[in-house]
Amino acid sequence: DLIAFAEEEGQRFPATFLGSSAVIGRFDPAWLEQADASGISMREAMAAAGLDPAAIAGCAVDASDALGFIEVHIEQGPVLEELGLALGVVTSINGSVRFTGEVIGVASHAGTTPMDRRRDAALAVAELALAVEQRAAKDRDSVGTVGVLEVPAGSINVVPGRCRFTLDLRAPEDGQRDRLVKDVLDALACICARRGLRYRLEESLRVAAAASDPVWQRRWEQAVESLGLPVHRMPSGAGHDAMKMHEAMPQAMLFVRGGNGGISHNPLEIITAHDAQRCVDALDACLRQLARDMVGACDDARG
Amino acid sequence: DLIAFAEEEGQRFPATFLGSSAVIGRFDPAWLEQADASGISMREAMAAAGLDPAAIAGCAVDASDALGFIEVHIEQGPVLEELGLALGVVTSINGSVRFTGEVIGVASHAGTTPMDRRRDAALAVAELALAVEQRAAKDRDSVGTVGVLEVPAGSINVVPGRCRFTLDLRAPEDGQRDRLVKDVLDALACICARRGLRYRLEESLRVAAAASDPVWQRRWEQAVESLGLPVHRMPSGAGHDAMKMHEAMPQAMLFVRGGNGGISHNPLEIITAHDAQRCVDALDACLRQLARDMVGACDDARG
Repeated sequence: DLIAFAEEEGQRFPATFLGSSAVIGRFDPAWLEQADASGISMREAMAAAGLDPAAIAGCAVDASDALGFIEVHIEQGPVLEELGLALGVVTSINGSVRFTGEVIGVASHAGTTPMDRRRDAALAVAELALAVEQRAAKDRDSVGTVGVLEVPAGSINVVPGRCRFTLDLRAPEDGQRDRLVKDVLDALACICARRGLRYRLEESLRVAAAASDPVWQRRWEQAVESLGLPVHRMPSGAGHDAMKMHEAMPQAMLFVRGGNGGISHNPLEIITAHDAQRCVDALDACLRQLARDMVGACDDARG
Repeated sequence: DLIAFAEEEGQRFPATFLGSSAVIGRFDPAWLEQADASGISMREAMAAAGLDPAAIAGCAVDASDALGFIEVHIEQGPVLEELGLALGVVTSINGSVRFTGEVIGVASHAGTTPMDRRRDAALAVAELALAVEQRAAKDRDSVGTVGVLEVPAGSINVVPGRCRFTLDLRAPEDGQRDRLVKDVLDALACICARRGLRYRLEESLRVAAAASDPVWQRRWEQAVESLGLPVHRMPSGAGHDAMKMHEAMPQAMLFVRGGNGGISHNPLEIITAHDAQRCVDALDACLRQLARDMVGACDDARG
């Protein structure tokens, strides 16, 4: 079966993986009441597009009937382009945890408050962001990002009394991710205690890492080899439908190199026609390898 | 002469020190065309209040006729309260320089961009803010603040491609301030070069330090001593009308302790009635000291 999934990103409504959730029978009906930025609910949007929410349940496949799920995707990052490689075999889709937080200090006069009397909320978040960078870099393949960093209504002559921030922490394996999260949260607590600041922190997302199925991953590796290309194994930093399918069946992914430094979610995102052909050839080789594996299994069964 | 100045702060219009500028004959007529947040010009606001802009020029005093200017002001900071002192003698009003800036990196996917491939603009500003804190603290009495710190349209899963910030750097003496500014700007250039980032920076304000006149400062010290209080000398971190009057005549200021941790520009800003009485007594003693000095000068002149 060939599937093109609807709405992995959560572009219009907060919920993500809409299509793949439906396919594994995990579409949450409560999502139908989520509203877009214009206040239109998912249910209303489906009706306007001539779709029937009641039919979603019927999309579910019987996972016990499936051998697995494979997916080809653009890397959305710079690694393959920098290595001069067309294809990469995904070892795992990173597990991630996200937090939204705020550090609370004391806003005060930038001219009259001596340096040793300040409770500057932004400096704590500055320290945190640099601690995240250092700690994530210590692992070869973890990533950590402070993407939102803002002194609300900050003023040039006021010591920041508050600073909003977010944390996005990812690693190819849940244990590695959890050690990263622990060290970062310890750093936050330590920084705020030392500076006499308070903070609040809310976890907004926690997704388990989805390791590639070893048998399917090996088929991708054989497919890449069969094209005469070197096998490069790499984790996926971004989430993909394969991550949702992982909840129901074995999965493995193939990455194709993105141009323009791997820029993504941007009109500059690009792959070459040559690389697209390599994906088609690799997919073909992977399915032929599956066929050989199954014939072999039948031969073995026949003894 | 006793003067209560209008609008030192620049609360309604961008221009500051309106009253003191008029008194020293430096009111800029162009300010009359400045508009408030509702689009009302200063000229219109004056007319509505029954004031005549043409009369401003007549406010100017003959500075050669003045012995000097003294001012009593709440500290607007925590120092006197923490030291348990009611009064402080100001040695200088800090010189300051302000900048508005932005660091420009490359926005990229927080999941797919390895730590060593990032050009994170916010991390550079984080380093800068911490460098400002460390460098200002090295001087006993400089202050440095990053009051605005913001990733524009920052997103939890995007490596910051831009980060806006401000710098406010102050010191009691212009040379000390300029060394502080140089070290901070060197740090910014160094951080951005190391991280492969660009930046832009605009100087928005430069005010010279206004050292207290030694003779007038000594009179304040004698006044404080005459009340049986210890003499504590301190710079003023905030600007005051005395800073404007300094352009025309000798000046010196007395600070009175603020309660509630020195909080300022806030309904919680407070001094006690007892401390207010000490200000009155110190002002009285200062003027009596002036009278004695002048009698002494006359006696000296008479030989």
